[in-house]
Amino acid sequence: MNTIMIYLPIVMAIIGLLFMWIKRSWVLKQDAGDGKMKEISDYIYEGALAFLKAEYRLLAFFVVGASIVLAGLSYFVPTTHILIVVAFVFGAVFSALAGNMGMKIATKTNVRTTQAARTSLPQALKVSFSGGTVMGLGVAGLAVLGLTSFFIFFFHFFMNGTWTSAEDMTIVLETLAGFSLGAESIALFARVGGGIYTKAADVGADLVGKVEAGIPEDDPRNPATIADNVGDNVGDVAGMGADLFGSYVATVLAAMVLGNYVIKDMGGSLDDAFGGIGPILLPMAIAGFGILFSIIGTMLVKITDENAKEAQVQKALNIGNWVSIGLTAVACYFLVQYMLPANMKMEFFGEGMQDISSMRVFYATIVGLVVGAVISSVTEYYTGLGTKPVMAIVQKSSTGAGTNVIAGLATGMISTFPTVLLFAAAIWTSYALAGFYGVALAASAMMATTAMQLAIDAFGPISDNAGGIAEMSELPKEVRTRTDILDSVGNTTAATGKGFAIASAALTSLALFAAYVTFTGIDGINIFKAPVLAMLFVGGMIPVVFSALAMNSVGKAAMDMVNEVRRQFKEIPGIMEGTGKPEYAKCVDISTKAALREMMLPGILTIGFPIAVVLLGKLVYGDNNQLVAEMLGGYMAGVTVSGVLWAVFQNNAGGAWDNAKKSFEAGVMINGEMTYKGSDAHKAAVTGDTVGDPFKDTSGPSMNILIKLTCLIGLVMAPILGSGSHTIAQNATCCITTGACTSMSKEECVAKGCTNAACEHMMGAKMMHEVSKQVTIEKTNVDGAVKATVTTVANGEEDVQVFEGTDAEVQTKIDALK
Amino acid sequence: MNTIMIYLPIVMAIIGLLFMWIKRSWVLKQDAGDGKMKEISDYIYEGALAFLKAEYRLLAFFVVGASIVLAGLSYFVPTTHILIVVAFVFGAVFSALAGNMGMKIATKTNVRTTQAARTSLPQALKVSFSGGTVMGLGVAGLAVLGLTSFFIFFFHFFMNGTWTSAEDMTIVLETLAGFSLGAESIALFARVGGGIYTKAADVGADLVGKVEAGIPEDDPRNPATIADNVGDNVGDVAGMGADLFGSYVATVLAAMVLGNYVIKDMGGSLDDAFGGIGPILLPMAIAGFGILFSIIGTMLVKITDENAKEAQVQKALNIGNWVSIGLTAVACYFLVQYMLPANMKMEFFGEGMQDISSMRVFYATIVGLVVGAVISSVTEYYTGLGTKPVMAIVQKSSTGAGTNVIAGLATGMISTFPTVLLFAAAIWTSYALAGFYGVALAASAMMATTAMQLAIDAFGPISDNAGGIAEMSELPKEVRTRTDILDSVGNTTAATGKGFAIASAALTSLALFAAYVTFTGIDGINIFKAPVLAMLFVGGMIPVVFSALAMNSVGKAAMDMVNEVRRQFKEIPGIMEGTGKPEYAKCVDISTKAALREMMLPGILTIGFPIAVVLLGKLVYGDNNQLVAEMLGGYMAGVTVSGVLWAVFQNNAGGAWDNAKKSFEAGVMINGEMTYKGSDAHKAAVTGDTVGDPFKDTSGPSMNILIKLTCLIGLVMAPILGSGSHTIAQNATCCITTGACTSMSKEECVAKGCTNAACEHMMGAKMMHEVSKQVTIEKTNVDGAVKATVTTVANGEEDVQVFEGTDAEVQTKIDALK
Repeated sequence: MNTIMIYLPIVMAIIGLLFMWIKRSWVLKQDAGDGKMKEISDYIYEGALAFLKAEYRLLAFFVVGASIVLAGLSYFVPTTHILIVVAFVFGAVFSALAGNMGMKIATKTNVRTTQAARTSLPQALKVSFSGGTVMGLGVAGLAVLGLTSFFIFFFHFFMNGTWTSAEDMTIVLETLAGFSLGAESIALFARVGGGIYTKAADVGADLVGKVEAGIPEDDPRNPATIADNVGDNVGDVAGMGADLFGSYVATVLAAMVLGNYVIKDMGGSLDDAFGGIGPILLPMAIAGFGILFSIIGTMLVKITDENAKEAQVQKALNIGNWVSIGLTAVACYFLVQYMLPANMKMEFFGEGMQDISSMRVFYATIVGLVVGAVISSVTEYYTGLGTKPVMAIVQKSSTGAGTNVIAGLATGMISTFPTVLLFAAAIWTSYALAGFYGVALAASAMMATTAMQLAIDAFGPISDNAGGIAEMSELPKEVRTRTDILDSVGNTTAATGKGFAIASAALTSLALFAAYVTFTGIDGINIFKAPVLAMLFVGGMIPVVFSALAMNSVGKAAMDMVNEVRRQFKEIPGIMEGTGKPEYAKCVDISTKAALREMMLPGILTIGFPIAVVLLGKLVYGDNNQLVAEMLGGYMAGVTVSGVLWAVFQNNAGGAWDNAKKSFEAGVMINGEMTYKGSDAHKAAVTGDTVGDPFKDTSGPSMNILIKLTCLIGLVMAPILGSGSHTIAQNATCCITTGACTSMSKEECVAKGCTNAACEHMMGAKMMHEVSKQVTIEKTNVDGAVKATVTTVANGEEDVQVFEGTDAEVQTKIDALK
Repeated sequence: MNTIMIYLPIVMAIIGLLFMWIKRSWVLKQDAGDGKMKEISDYIYEGALAFLKAEYRLLAFFVVGASIVLAGLSYFVPTTHILIVVAFVFGAVFSALAGNMGMKIATKTNVRTTQAARTSLPQALKVSFSGGTVMGLGVAGLAVLGLTSFFIFFFHFFMNGTWTSAEDMTIVLETLAGFSLGAESIALFARVGGGIYTKAADVGADLVGKVEAGIPEDDPRNPATIADNVGDNVGDVAGMGADLFGSYVATVLAAMVLGNYVIKDMGGSLDDAFGGIGPILLPMAIAGFGILFSIIGTMLVKITDENAKEAQVQKALNIGNWVSIGLTAVACYFLVQYMLPANMKMEFFGEGMQDISSMRVFYATIVGLVVGAVISSVTEYYTGLGTKPVMAIVQKSSTGAGTNVIAGLATGMISTFPTVLLFAAAIWTSYALAGFYGVALAASAMMATTAMQLAIDAFGPISDNAGGIAEMSELPKEVRTRTDILDSVGNTTAATGKGFAIASAALTSLALFAAYVTFTGIDGINIFKAPVLAMLFVGGMIPVVFSALAMNSVGKAAMDMVNEVRRQFKEIPGIMEGTGKPEYAKCVDISTKAALREMMLPGILTIGFPIAVVLLGKLVYGDNNQLVAEMLGGYMAGVTVSGVLWAVFQNNAGGAWDNAKKSFEAGVMINGEMTYKGSDAHKAAVTGDTVGDPFKDTSGPSMNILIKLTCLIGLVMAPILGSGSHTIAQNATCCITTGACTSMSKEECVAKGCTNAACEHMMGAKMMHEVSKQVTIEKTNVDGAVKATVTTVANGEEDVQVFEGTDAEVQTKIDALK
């Protein structure tokens, strides 16, 4: 076996982490500025850490609770091994670690960016983007390291490191799903909690500071200003990091599961140079190379022009991004050719077994890369400064807040049109190319450059923070001008990053959905069954209600903040004159507590509902596992379809409102008149932006996690719903504990300590696979002319024979077949 | 054959129409008031008629175009008969007729209500509700009359008025679907066009009149005020009427289709007192009785107290409503017992054939009635004056328009939770009780009292108009006070009516969806096939984009209106002093033109997309009709699930904003202070209401038609996608033209002029049904102990035999089976 390929991703992950460490050291060595700057930056750092600590404390309880549930599951469902708990805990810890690391570096980089901006823009970009790179490589490195290590461990534990059967590999991957579940669970709370935190602080700071007290944004006299800056890190850095960490892991996992089914479709074993698991290793390899190419991409992001504007900064980012995507495409070609059999067989539901060449798998990866690129352009079109839809919102602002809001909502809604058509085309094409394995690999290829995407994404909030520190430290105006350029580009990358995140979540969910169907062994999800259709409805409703809960949470948390800021303004003497010191920590504390409190209900909704669907189904249909599994499948599809729609709608509406408001800063032409900040039209635009804030930063991005986590929970519950799970379960336990699966007679199996029944079952299953034969005879009698079609299916091969003649003649021929 | 039951619904429809005529004469005999009142009322009447005429002129083109397409379809797809064109045209004409009639009476009743309100409230209620009753009975009467007459006609034309086979009945019902398609197509344009009209006029009148010129609502100096009042009739009366007309027809049709499949499941024929078509006649009978009970219900709506308030008026409506629903429930019991076999067999996908007693069908109808009632309470809870969610929006208004809008959006979103759970429970329960026939009958029972629902619904806009006329004619204040009481109750019934309309649309669509699956003969819709899943996504996107288009249309049309009103204010001398006369007709014309222009794109989207899905599917998958049919099914499911969500979201958000704004009229307590109209909080609430207007009156209600029409188009296209449609098609043509289906030898068939091949095919199909036999043998060999399961399916009956022993022994037994 070519063992290199199984360990290679680990090596690449380690290279990524080493490079991250070097970058990190470089960033930390940069000048952190003088007294006031340092002080403010420390406040932000401490606030962010305080939130993380409080969050992790709460999540520790959750992890313990969920572990107990998983342990129970593994006790009652023999195909689920207790090791899933270990994987789950590590997944949670790795995700938390990635978040922690990213947030720490982001809060260290912000002040260094401010300091660098005192000298030049190129230097400021270098510092802030390096911070983003640390974040990106940390997330991607940890994801690949964790997933690959656990795969190797389970592969050796359950299968002794050699291929036995697709069934055994299913157990390996099912256990590995625990890692993904752990990561995604943390992501849920990080995204939702972070989203609530950032908007509560933002809205609270604005409502009392800007509106009531009339002081500018980021004014150090505003007690909520630190919380606001912490929020940028908590929501945009840690939240996005956890989100993409989860997507990354889930995508690769789903592709591995579907790779295993490719092997199964090809007769249960493969003779390749990779121990027969090439299709399973491929997604990990792509992920590993993606890290390398991201490193190369990040190195290309630089500007030299001291007087550069947004366009040049954007161009620098684009170059890095395109190079890493291009290299990934090339690597996909060679990896696919190298690791996959030139010709594969895949089962297409309703279309039978088809021959698939490895080139078609490569085309599927290209589909994924193209979707990732196009989605960014589409998002940019609907939300970018100066685009037609955004200018239309600006125009509508002249007739008041009402028309502005309608225009924003309509823009978000319309934007689902190209986005969904793109997704639908991607699903269909990549499936047509290489089945659901193609869909999963499209997602894998798209996610391969996650490190680069995150670097681009994270540099935005770092620059935003840098600007805030410049403002609060009362630095010269040109510093703020420089950070503003970076911030402005960061706003664009934030919007396109959200497009990337939802595209990845959509494809990941579909891959997980496909993995779920194969895990349960059901023959599809038929929405013509009313209980399935009912669950499709219920699933469709969940993202809507989830969004509403998140939005209401922001409102409640913001109110807490407003009250606290009002109190401080009233009670702290000299606060407005700058002589009294605001109690920043209190505001940070309020945001923290509110975020943690408010993320519970959406969390329960997300995790509780799929479980409720299964319990309800079992209650009504008892042992009809197929139907219950289809119900859960219908629910998953409902959540995914509706979740994608609401994510796109909310993200883009929010982004469009934001930039419509920003357009007034440079002035816009409305009805032939230049209109600026402070005009009535601008006030209307501010109202729209207020509505858009929770849309784009809280409820919209949470949809990603909602749909992925829903599908992951389904995947983890799949073994309970496997058709005839009980029999399989007995076999499996027997297989695992005795190693009987590979080659052993019934007597040997019994001798190993298994019950007679279990061994018989298991052997029966193996035998059945060998000798099972199904003969279907269809006779048609037209006026005495008999036509018979005899279909024989044996060992997965179908043979059709047609006889015509009189009834007696045909019967003779049929009998002769025996 | 008990021929009474087939003709009875016609008799009841005629009774309903007669009663309507009596009511109409009574209303027209009422005093229409003096000069100014009459003048204004005439303006409204003429404006409404002008819109209808322009609309019908445009729709005539559409009907001609669609007829040509349908004729083409019937030419190429032999199971589709050319008569579908006739049915389609009549469906369109009947729908237009119902709308025309309702609008005429509504615009005649308004001024008479004003006049009646000069004497007393009870009299005003009597007049306005009588107008509503005329509308309700007209719609229901025409629907039942048209549908039943065409059924009888087709039943005689295709089957000579006697049962032959379920296949022949399918052709009858497929042709009848044309009637429903015609009705629903008109409804699409009436709802969308009416919705755009009413909001364009409303917003336009308010923006310039109230906001810019500072004159009150309904002020005769405002040129758009007549258009605004016309809009109430065009949108709320004609739009809602066309909507429910369509639902009514589609529901009954779908139930008939599924009744036919009950007969098929029971072996292809039934021995009952109704010529073997009891299950098909039942939904029509329920509809017929529903008309009678609606008449009884309307007679109970009256008040006697001269000083009655909203509560008493509401109570009077409730009594009438509950009595008609109660009587329908009782009638359902007896009709089900009388018309259905005591025990039926129904095929449940994935669960096999089940025995269903007629009582279970009755329970399903009760489910429908309960859903209709509960949905009203849920809607009332989220949108009613003084309810918790509405008061929460009021509170949020104090912090500005942004928070008000967020709260309103969140309320609409949260309201999907109980609504969707209710629908899901209804689908599941009624299906579990009696399959999709149960779902369709639940919808039929719910829709039975359509006449009553519409009467309650239509009296609202009539009273609204009456108030407008009182204002414009400068009548004494107490007249307006009386009409305001009616108007206020009308607002509540409008919201609950919307709940009823979407509930009916949802159940209707599901029934149509089920009918579609049975028509195409596919074995379910498997969303695990990627193309199907992709279409589920696309379908889910359509309602979102449709809503956005409708909202944008309102904005554009309102802008046209604003410009015209501004122009008149500027150019007509003395207009503000009341000496110059505004050109009302110009504003009416602008609204009319804008509505007609803007309804095109949503219409094309609705009708074009399902056709595009089929074309695309055929292009890619050629003759794999099963897959294409599943793709279209996935699309239909996506539209339905997403459409229901967006309808509920938009209707309820809009309703909640509206009443949040209205709350300020009586004053509300915010942060311990009484706050009234004119306050900042009120202004914020007005912004919310502006956003809500197109939500609740344009895009929200349009969703009903979108989902129903999508499913109907699917149903009409079903024969193209039938599995092996070509063969069936030849048989069918042969059957129809020769009557060979019933009893004829091949020779006789050929002698009738059919081709040899067609006759053979047809005979073959018949023979196959008799002799087809499918034998499935599954053998398991466990250590030499062979176990064989032989399943023989012949004539729909399954026989399972199990043999155990050595291979030879088992084979002998299997051979002996022959």
